[in-house]
Amino acid sequence: MKVNGVSLRPLRPLPDGRGIEVIDQRRLPFELQMRPLRSARDVFVAIREMWVRGAPLIGAVAAYGLAMQARKDASDVALRNTAGFLKGSRPTAVNLAWAVDRLLAHVLVLPESARADAAWAGAEAIAEEDVRVNEAIGRHGLLLLQAIAARKPGPVNLLTHCNAGWLATVDWGTATSPIYQAHAAGIAVHVWVDETRPRNQGASLTAWELGQAGVPHTVIADNAGGHLMQHGRVDLCIVGCDRVAANGDACNKIGTYLKALAAHDNGVPFLVAMPTSTLDLALADGVHGIPIEERSGRELTHVSGRTSAGEVVEVQLTPDGSTAANPAFDVTPARLITGLITEHGVVAAEAAALHQLMEGRR
Amino acid sequence: MKVNGVSLRPLRPLPDGRGIEVIDQRRLPFELQMRPLRSARDVFVAIREMWVRGAPLIGAVAAYGLAMQARKDASDVALRNTAGFLKGSRPTAVNLAWAVDRLLAHVLVLPESARADAAWAGAEAIAEEDVRVNEAIGRHGLLLLQAIAARKPGPVNLLTHCNAGWLATVDWGTATSPIYQAHAAGIAVHVWVDETRPRNQGASLTAWELGQAGVPHTVIADNAGGHLMQHGRVDLCIVGCDRVAANGDACNKIGTYLKALAAHDNGVPFLVAMPTSTLDLALADGVHGIPIEERSGRELTHVSGRTSAGEVVEVQLTPDGSTAANPAFDVTPARLITGLITEHGVVAAEAAALHQLMEGRR
Repeated sequence: MKVNGVSLRPLRPLPDGRGIEVIDQRRLPFELQMRPLRSARDVFVAIREMWVRGAPLIGAVAAYGLAMQARKDASDVALRNTAGFLKGSRPTAVNLAWAVDRLLAHVLVLPESARADAAWAGAEAIAEEDVRVNEAIGRHGLLLLQAIAARKPGPVNLLTHCNAGWLATVDWGTATSPIYQAHAAGIAVHVWVDETRPRNQGASLTAWELGQAGVPHTVIADNAGGHLMQHGRVDLCIVGCDRVAANGDACNKIGTYLKALAAHDNGVPFLVAMPTSTLDLALADGVHGIPIEERSGRELTHVSGRTSAGEVVEVQLTPDGSTAANPAFDVTPARLITGLITEHGVVAAEAAALHQLMEGRR
Repeated sequence: MKVNGVSLRPLRPLPDGRGIEVIDQRRLPFELQMRPLRSARDVFVAIREMWVRGAPLIGAVAAYGLAMQARKDASDVALRNTAGFLKGSRPTAVNLAWAVDRLLAHVLVLPESARADAAWAGAEAIAEEDVRVNEAIGRHGLLLLQAIAARKPGPVNLLTHCNAGWLATVDWGTATSPIYQAHAAGIAVHVWVDETRPRNQGASLTAWELGQAGVPHTVIADNAGGHLMQHGRVDLCIVGCDRVAANGDACNKIGTYLKALAAHDNGVPFLVAMPTSTLDLALADGVHGIPIEERSGRELTHVSGRTSAGEVVEVQLTPDGSTAANPAFDVTPARLITGLITEHGVVAAEAAALHQLMEGRR
């Protein structure tokens, strides 16, 4: 995607082939700053502290982290340790483990001297595959948007939660890919952007992305979506995901479940954009099986923003002495999901369909 | 209720009997500041700009506003104009119109010379009635909390949205009244406090109230409640309301509907604390009939908080160029409401029961 007319990705290899640069997403929407990551430790911190976030992106960044380690010490023990270390940076998204484990298996079968270059090439392949996957998700999702546009006047009103945009991936985004493709195809779209407390990924990242792309959008409180759906002002909900279980239950940013309930209550289609790398067939039951990261309450009690003088500062919102809890994800039961938009097409959120999809790929 | 051990109400008459003092709720939780209101115009601004908010409180404050006018010009035309003016300050809560119309009818039958004192006494009566009503709501709600406490170990976990606390009323609060009474009775309670974006009434007012009263509580993002209910961590939801229609649909702060959906999906009782002054039997259908106030998008794009230096500042959260929509309320369909806690007892959210309740009072 483009920023100020220039193509940009949230992740790009450094010219020396020993590190990467990433957009420090904590600084958006007020400052676009790239930061270099030159070691697995740098990568761990960048994921843990959410300079980078989004299931597909942290998978690709973690793969590069393993490749950086392979440049330094490509022994079995070093690579295995680093893989475990990187996978521990965040617990919920399965793409992280998927990318690291895939790359590890790929290089461990090679002689040690060949591993560094192979790991780097493997990380690049994972990143490029993500771009192709998201482009395909966009093509399949576009058909849904075209169908809605064909049967109603005015713009197609979508609602999204959190940021499953290009900033959360290597390019295109997952949930935003159909939106960008529809916009490019001349279909009128308008996006209700959930603010997405406590980290405001909607207000700070999705709104910024859509603004850069010229896509009409309106930021709303996370509280507002139910009311809008109740009054016919949302045609389609589309969100990303961090892990989908074999039964179709989908884990995504905290609050997604509430929007799915409202969509179900009002007959609004609720779509989850899911690269198949996000599918965890080893997990039978999403609601009871997916580990939910508990993050610091400070993410809720304090918020960063820009003062009228242009300075970005952190302010406290809650009274001294009041504590906060901060579960970062929730799980939407499959029964509330209209369909999963994968790179292979739209599939039902149910065990048989998901099993068949993955069997068909083998 | 007490603040730092001293009894306080969010509204108190000034000693000269020509105005009132109110807590400027925009300054909480960081500063407790009383501000004088000495005219209907002052009252209008204080309600419109939300120095005071909460359906019962704005009803009582508006009644005093009419009484202030009666001290200046108690003619029919002046009082009728002022009543209309005050009722226009906010459109959703019915208590505002209820209190103003009741007081107007009370004084218009009197000779002009008797109206000023009668209006003042009438406003006082409305305020004192609110205290009694809320105390009674607390007694009825307490029975529900006692029943839960009796059948499970550990504290009763409640979830509340927005502030239906003593700050939203003349005293006790509506949704908090059972909580305060349970706490006083030695029942262990713990309250999940929804932050309540965009104005953060939960994070700034309810958390502050509960902290002052020593009630254990945890602030959460509005997004988190569904996840907590899904995992058995909420025993009861209890909220206030701004208007309840004849069919039992309940209008309350934006986002309430989403919590009611989650409660229903997880078998968690969802109770609405409702003074009968909040019931609008003239409105058959709440979802389609209650006017929803649209407030400025700036309430969402900007937020106030305290810097580490102790200064309260406003910061911008969203990118320049992204607009925001801000519906202030939503309507929870009666089918999602377990019961309405009124000053007369708990009543079903359905037309026949509400009709019978009000008939029985006449």
